This record gives sequence, C-alpha cells and structure tokens, in this order.
Amino acid sequence: MKYQNFDRTVVYRNLRKKAKTFDFSLKDNLDSKRAAKCVTPMAAGLKYSWAAKQVDNETIGLLQTAADKQEAIKKYIEVLNGKIMNTGENRKVLHHLTRGQQKRSVTEDGKNIGKFYQKELSRFSNFAAAVHKGKFKGATGKPFTTVVQIGIGGSDLGPRAMYLALENWAAANGVKKMEAKFISNVDPDDASNVTASCLLEETLFILVSKSGTTQETLANELFVKEKLKKAGLDSSKHMIAVTSETSPLAKNSAYLDSFYIDDYVGGRYSSTSAVGGCVLSLAFGPDVFKEFLAGAAEADKMALEPNILQNAALLDALIGVWERNFMGYPYTAVLPYSQALFRFPAHLQQMDMESNGKRVNRNGEPVKYETGPVIFGEPGTNGQHSFYQLLHQGTSIIPLQFIAFKESQKDDDVKVGGSTSQNKLNANLAAQITAFAKGQDSKDKNKEFPGGRPSSLIYGKKLTPAALGSLLAHFENKVMFQGFIWNLNSFDQEGVQLGKVLTKKVLQGKYGDTALEAFSKMLGV
Amino acid sequence: MKYQNFDRTVVYRNLRKKAKTFDFSLKDNLDSKRAAKCVTPMAAGLKYSWAAKQVDNETIGLLQTAADKQEAIKKYIEVLNGKIMNTGENRKVLHHLTRGQQKRSVTEDGKNIGKFYQKELSRFSNFAAAVHKGKFKGATGKPFTTVVQIGIGGSDLGPRAMYLALENWAAANGVKKMEAKFISNVDPDDASNVTASCLLEETLFILVSKSGTTQETLANELFVKEKLKKAGLDSSKHMIAVTSETSPLAKNSAYLDSFYIDDYVGGRYSSTSAVGGCVLSLAFGPDVFKEFLAGAAEADKMALEPNILQNAALLDALIGVWERNFMGYPYTAVLPYSQALFRFPAHLQQMDMESNGKRVNRNGEPVKYETGPVIFGEPGTNGQHSFYQLLHQGTSIIPLQFIAFKESQKDDDVKVGGSTSQNKLNANLAAQITAFAKGQDSKDKNKEFPGGRPSSLIYGKKLTPAALGSLLAHFENKVMFQGFIWNLNSFDQEGVQLGKVLTKKVLQGKYGDTALEAFSKMLGV
Repeated sequence: MKYQNFDRTVVYRNLRKKAKTFDFSLKDNLDSKRAAKCVTPMAAGLKYSWAAKQVDNETIGLLQTAADKQEAIKKYIEVLNGKIMNTGENRKVLHHLTRGQQKRSVTEDGKNIGKFYQKELSRFSNFAAAVHKGKFKGATGKPFTTVVQIGIGGSDLGPRAMYLALENWAAANGVKKMEAKFISNVDPDDASNVTASCLLEETLFILVSKSGTTQETLANELFVKEKLKKAGLDSSKHMIAVTSETSPLAKNSAYLDSFYIDDYVGGRYSSTSAVGGCVLSLAFGPDVFKEFLAGAAEADKMALEPNILQNAALLDALIGVWERNFMGYPYTAVLPYSQALFRFPAHLQQMDMESNGKRVNRNGEPVKYETGPVIFGEPGTNGQHSFYQLLHQGTSIIPLQFIAFKESQKDDDVKVGGSTSQNKLNANLAAQITAFAKGQDSKDKNKEFPGGRPSSLIYGKKLTPAALGSLLAHFENKVMFQGFIWNLNSFDQEGVQLGKVLTKKVLQGKYGDTALEAFSKMLGV
Repeated sequence: MKYQNFDRTVVYRNLRKKAKTFDFSLKDNLDSKRAAKCVTPMAAGLKYSWAAKQVDNETIGLLQTAADKQEAIKKYIEVLNGKIMNTGENRKVLHHLTRGQQKRSVTEDGKNIGKFYQKELSRFSNFAAAVHKGKFKGATGKPFTTVVQIGIGGSDLGPRAMYLALENWAAANGVKKMEAKFISNVDPDDASNVTASCLLEETLFILVSKSGTTQETLANELFVKEKLKKAGLDSSKHMIAVTSETSPLAKNSAYLDSFYIDDYVGGRYSSTSAVGGCVLSLAFGPDVFKEFLAGAAEADKMALEPNILQNAALLDALIGVWERNFMGYPYTAVLPYSQALFRFPAHLQQMDMESNGKRVNRNGEPVKYETGPVIFGEPGTNGQHSFYQLLHQGTSIIPLQFIAFKESQKDDDVKVGGSTSQNKLNANLAAQITAFAKGQDSKDKNKEFPGGRPSSLIYGKKLTPAALGSLLAHFENKVMFQGFIWNLNSFDQEGVQLGKVLTKKVLQGKYGDTALEAFSKMLGV
C-alpha cells in the first residue's frame, strides 16, 4: 500500500494546473441534459446529483486518477480487513462492522470483533424489546416511557441527530415507543433542565462513555443520581451503561445492564454501534434500528466501487478535495431541506472537522496543503431567510451540500395557493440550486447575483430509517476517502488533549501559567 | 458625512503594510498583565476581553484611525437621527428606538416613530398582562398556557434564541408564565410536530410577518387554522398578529389583536420590537422584557463612545475587520459556554451574514475587499468534543468569540471531584483560551499544538435579561460598525430575492429554464 502526501503525486500538480486556467460557467453548462447525466446512485434509493458542481469531464478524469493513485478503494478495504488505520493510536478502525451486515472476519487476540458487535446488537435489541414489554420497570414499578442519553461529542451529536431525524417518521408509522432526551453539556443548567422535564419514575438513563472517564459525562451522571436519590428512586434500576469492557462502568452493579463497544469505533463513528443503538432501539424498537443499519451497510458496499461516477461517497469526497485544494474554498455548508435533519449538520460538523482537521499526515509529518474545511449549516427554507444572503452575494464562494426528500415524513400537509407546503419546500430548493449556479444580471449591482456558486444535491423519496443509514454512511465514507487522498489519519483526535490537561490544572489550582490563572479568576473558577 | 470604500483610505494601506510584517506571538505576549489590561466594559456589567487577540498597540492605533476616518460614530449618530441609512431600500434604520429608552425624536410624515414603538410596547405589555390575568381565554374558556410564534428568519431566530436564553432563568426566578414554541420551516413536518405537541385549547398563536406576505408563514398560518378548525376552535380567539400597519394582517378580525412594527426595523434587528416583544412578554411577563430592553439600551449608549478602547462593540468590530481583511481569516466561530445560548450562534449567523454578506457598497458599486465572514458555532463544552480538533490543529486559523458567565442560571449543581459542574465549565473555557493562544510543543508532531489561534471573551456574572439585552445589542452594533468600515448598506437583503422569483416560477409551472425544471421534477414538485 502506498501512503504518500497528496502533493507528491503528479495528479496533484495536474489538478493545480487545471484549476489555474479553469473557466467553467455553471450558467452556460447547467441544463436539463447535465442535470440528467450527473447523477450517481446511493444506498436505499437515494441519489447524488453533482450537476451544479464546477467540474467538467477533464476534472472528473483527474479526480479519478487522484483516487486511483492514492489507492482510496484499496485503503478502504484495508479498513474493512482490520489493518491498523488509526496510526496515531495504533488501532484498527471497525465502525463498518457495527452495521452487522459485514461478512468479513476481523479478529484480535482470538476475538472475532464483528461477532462481538453482533452479539451486543442482539443484547441491546433484546433489552429494548424487554423494556417495551414491561419486563424492566422503574423502582416504583412504573413502565419506562422516557429514555435520556447522558454523553458528549460522539456519544451525543450522532445519536441525537438520528433520533430527531426519525422521531416524526416513527410517530407517523406507529412505532414510537419512548420519548428520548439528551444531556451533554457540563453546564449544570443542561442536566437541570432535562431532569426537570422528565417523570423520573418512568425514565431510563443511558450513561455513555467509552473510557468511563469522560469528565462531563461523569459529572452529569452524579447530577442525575442525586436527582433520583432525592426522588427516593434506586438509581441502579434507572440506569444502563454503554462503555468498553475494560472501563470502570463495565459489569458494575450500579447499572441495570451494560452494553459494550471498543476502541475500534471512534465516538464520531459510533451512531451505528451500541452508542446509537441503545437509545434508538429503545425509542423506536430494534427493528427500526436494524433498518437503519441495513441502509448504512448497503452504502458501505456501494463505496467499494472503484469508478468514481458510480461511487457517490468517493465522488463527493473528490469534488470536496477539488473545491478545498484547487478552487480554494475553505468551507462547506450542509443544507437539508428537511426539518427532521435539523441537527444533522452539527453531527457532520463533528464527523468531518474532527476527522480531517489535521496539520500532519498519518505519520505525524506536516502537510503543505489544506485539509478539512469548516462545516456548518441549518435547514432550508429557514436558512434562506438567514445567511443565504452571504451565500448569494457575499465576497466569498461557499460550496453547498443540499439534502431533500420528495415526501414529508408525516404526510400531514395543507394546500395554500394551489400547492402543498411540501411542494413549496422543494420548489424553493430547486429555485435555490438554479439561482446559486446561474445568478442573474442586473443594472442595479445591488440586485445582481453573480452565480457560479456550486452545489450538490442528495435526494430521495422519503427520510426513512434506511435512507438515514444511507445518508450517515455516505458522509462517514466521504470523510474517510478525503483522509486517504490527504494522507491523514482521520481516526484520532489529539487536538482535544491539551484542553483536558489545562482544565485539570485549573481545577487543581496548579496553573503554571499566569494567563491561565487570570482567565480562570475572571470566570470565577 | 464621508462615505468611501475602505481601500480608498490611507489607513487601509497602513493596516495592509502592518499585517505583512506582523509577527505577534500570543505565546510570548499573553500573560496576566495583558489579561488585566485588555478588557473593555460593556452594558449590564458584562466585559469584553481581547487579550487573546492578535493585536498590539500599533494595531489598536491603526484601528482607531480606521474608525475615525470611516466616521463610525458619526454614522451611528446618523442612524439614531433617522437618516436614510438603508440606501438600497431608501429607508431609515430605527431598531435602536425599539429599546424604548431613546430620547431622540425621529419623525416621518409627522409621525413620531419612537413614540409609535413605545405605544406598541405598551400595548403588547398590557395584552400580555391581560392574558396572564386570564382576561383573554381560548375558545373553550381555558386559560392560555402555551404561546406559539409562527415566523421565519428574523421573526424566528432572534426571538427563539432569546426565549431559550431566558427560559431557565425565568423558571428559577418564578417568572415563567407560559411555554413558548416556534414554527418556522415550510416543511409541513415542522408545523405538524409543534401543533401535535400543544394543547390547542390552551394555545395562543402569534403570526409574525412584517409584509403579511411571507410564503412560509402564510402556509403555516393556514396549517394551524385547519388544526384549530378540526379541533372545533375559533381561530380568531387563538391568534394575534405582529405586522406592519399597511399589511393585509393589520386590523383584521381574523386575529384577537394585532401589534405593529414598520419598515425601519429589519427582521434580523427585530428581537427588541413587537416581533420579539410579544412572545417574550407572554412567556416571561412584560417586566422581564423591559429589563432586556434596558440592557440593550445601555449597550446602545455605550456604543457612542469614540475611543475604541472604551467601546466594546466598535473594538470588536475593528478587530473583526483586522482579522478578515488583513490577517485573511474568512470565518468566526461563536462559542458560548452556556447551554442557554444554544441557539444564539444561529441568530448571530443571520444577523452578521445577512447584514454584511455583500459584494457592493452602499451605492451599489463593487468593493475590492472581503466583507462579512462566515459565522458558525455551538455551545461549549460540547464543541470541545466535536469540531475543536480542527480549531486547534487544522490547517486554517479560525478566530473565536467566547461568551461565559460566572454563575449558572438555575444554581442547581453538583460537586464531583471537588468542583461543581459550573466550575468545570469555566475551567474548561480558561483552558481552551490558553491552549488556543499558546499551543504546546511536542516531539510527536501529531500531539503538537501550534497555538496562535486568536479568541475574545465576553463574560459576566449571570445570564439575566439585562445581560442578554447587552449581548444582543453588542453584536447588532458590532455588525453595524463593520458595515460602516466596509462602506456597506448592512440593512437590506437583496440576496434573498432571486430565489423567491424562481420559486414562484416553479409553483406556476412556468420554469423558463431547463435546469430549474429538471431539478423541480427530481424533487417531485
């Protein structure tokens, strides 16, 4: 396997040369023919449209060469085969195995990891089913109606975004079993607020920390335990843990049960493991969670395709590289035209920025090109009435990633002026794609739209569990492929460590730095 | 008054020269002395610390000159005096008058605008008090317990962020009168979800649209009316309107009452008008809303100070300009260490990006320098476990704007390992400021932190209504001052128009563009 910095390849120089003289007008090129041609299939019936991206045939050819030369597919197979791809922490990267559909066998110290994840999937599926059947009840004998996840970062953003994405769908399809809530921030107002909104007697808490040592999560655990105690409830009947088998939380009688993950599933890739699986299975039932996994597994399979025109995750990754390194765009906006995906951009923000926000390659050597962009976004049409002004008429160009579905989740709609709200939603999106690409001339320059703002569109029939799994895995694989092109280790996060060390110093009163002490005092610590 | 493009000034060239040879090390310079010195007072007892920004005395001197040469304070006084500062739409800009504390008299066609805002403030205060006293009740005679705002963009983001910011504070202080919810997106799942979560008999809806023609808002109004009808409730007893006096919604018997704004308060600046005032007064009582206004009014007054070291909004604006135009940073992250400010970054994203995301100056002539940056953010400590990796170790530098309070809002806390959660929250922030500024060397380059990541910190004792008003007005005035430096009209938003025009074409089936038609069909419109 060849691990080389991107700028060591011939194709990097050719892409640079190409970009210098690139004069591709979206206004002139974007028509129905291009819209029909530039579509790549995705899992669960979704499609990736890249017609409104600034790429021509030659660009696509060069990007295919980049994928080939950086051996993107071969490296993905290395991931699946359990090679040490998290070089910084000397770990395998096995979140794909959590989809439960992978036939590959990865073993470590004689343990079959895929089977381990399968077993946990089966265990928490059974647990959720038992809760729904009333086999587990709260300390006063009341059935559980609410589940509260206590976790932060990867133990929060992904599961929360997935829950919100399916909440309406589940309600409309009669499979919503429990209400889910989330406590993440160490700000005590967060835990106070969530616990105050729950009937504690009917609430099951899930404590999620892989290491079992996450400061915020442990503080919030104690916060919750004190609330339960005050309510006269035995906390061990109201709490389960999701952690690694070696953590202090494992096999601990303080919890009703514990479900396991391991070091080969990074937090930001853990939505398909027990970290997302417990809360989603409790909220919607294990079958819904398995449909979600099936969508992700199908996406993983499609990501094995070497032809970039048939591999949406790889193509999306490469177009992102083109925009970041050669067009010089330092950000990407993720804009779902679906209120259910309200927190999906926040999850992608973590997944992408924590994975590829790196200055050194997988061997710890500085790279001389830009890596991960800033990711941000809000749902449409809301964003149209907010920051789209800058997207249309600002001095910078921001690549856009739209997501949309033909049908709403609840099919509870109204017709005003001859069109449903769902029609209006998608009419707005079609209008935006066109407006961003083509712009509009005007004598009054304040009313002129320069156009040339590139966008892609992921679209499907309806946001179902399988479609959501497809969407999630698409972005996970996209980010992984970008890491391969950039020769990064996308699976560690050393950038979070220094803050932890300094926080400890503050809390121990051993600052060792006058500024650190001054800021601590200013903040009343 | 001199309106000139920024690059026409001598100080622009001097700042460029300065930046070229600027070699200011935060690592070497940031100590307790600098932390103590670089603090500027704000309204309601807040403070603005800029010690961890990359500015030296000479930079400050040049920025003062930039403020003076671009006549920032004089232009602000022009705003207050009712000059036509929204040049594109030929309108005054009078949101400062909505704070209700301004003594200045601005008249138009014989009408005193400040008095008009005062009168509306008094009207909706009385209305809210009457609702709380049970003088208005739902169609079945039940008192109103929930208020739902229907609006989008400026009629949603600001009021929603302000409500969430004060919800806990109000609960802890026994002044929470009603639960507030918000419907904004035209995605029918949004309205369906919110209405399904309400007891309609006890719910009062506020329809907010200045023009009375906002597509999304009118669709959602009908959605809500159909739900009320199905529930056998007379919608005119469950709905009030906030609109302009000339809109179709004004003085309309379809509503219980109507409250007015006018064209001189832009949507993104309307949180202190009836747009924010009705929902906040209903939720927390009119007195709380008035405390919020008082904080904003004090901030407006302090923003009149010409010395940038004593004018936090102006200084913040200028440092932002320094970072955008001369240091070359195209984004700013807003990071509140306060869960209550969860949606504050989304509001700032609109306020900033819609105001200054412009390519032409106030006369419609293209500018040759960068204007408004991309704004994004999430609360700490959550963000630490998410995108901070890129902030610390990515290839790009992203300026940071922290916000924090010594005390939590609810004072419901727990001690773990010798420190409260509130202590941990702020210890984390002090650690982050230091880590971003100073970094850390390491032989293992993957564990090295380059530092030199600039941040500012707004801090105070507690997030109260007055503190929130101070915070809101700080950013409004900051964005206004940046617009003056860049010679922009920060008060129109022509960039939203083209999308509206094309959406209409789609809904009428008269595409006029093959790509627009193709994307519409793909999306099932």
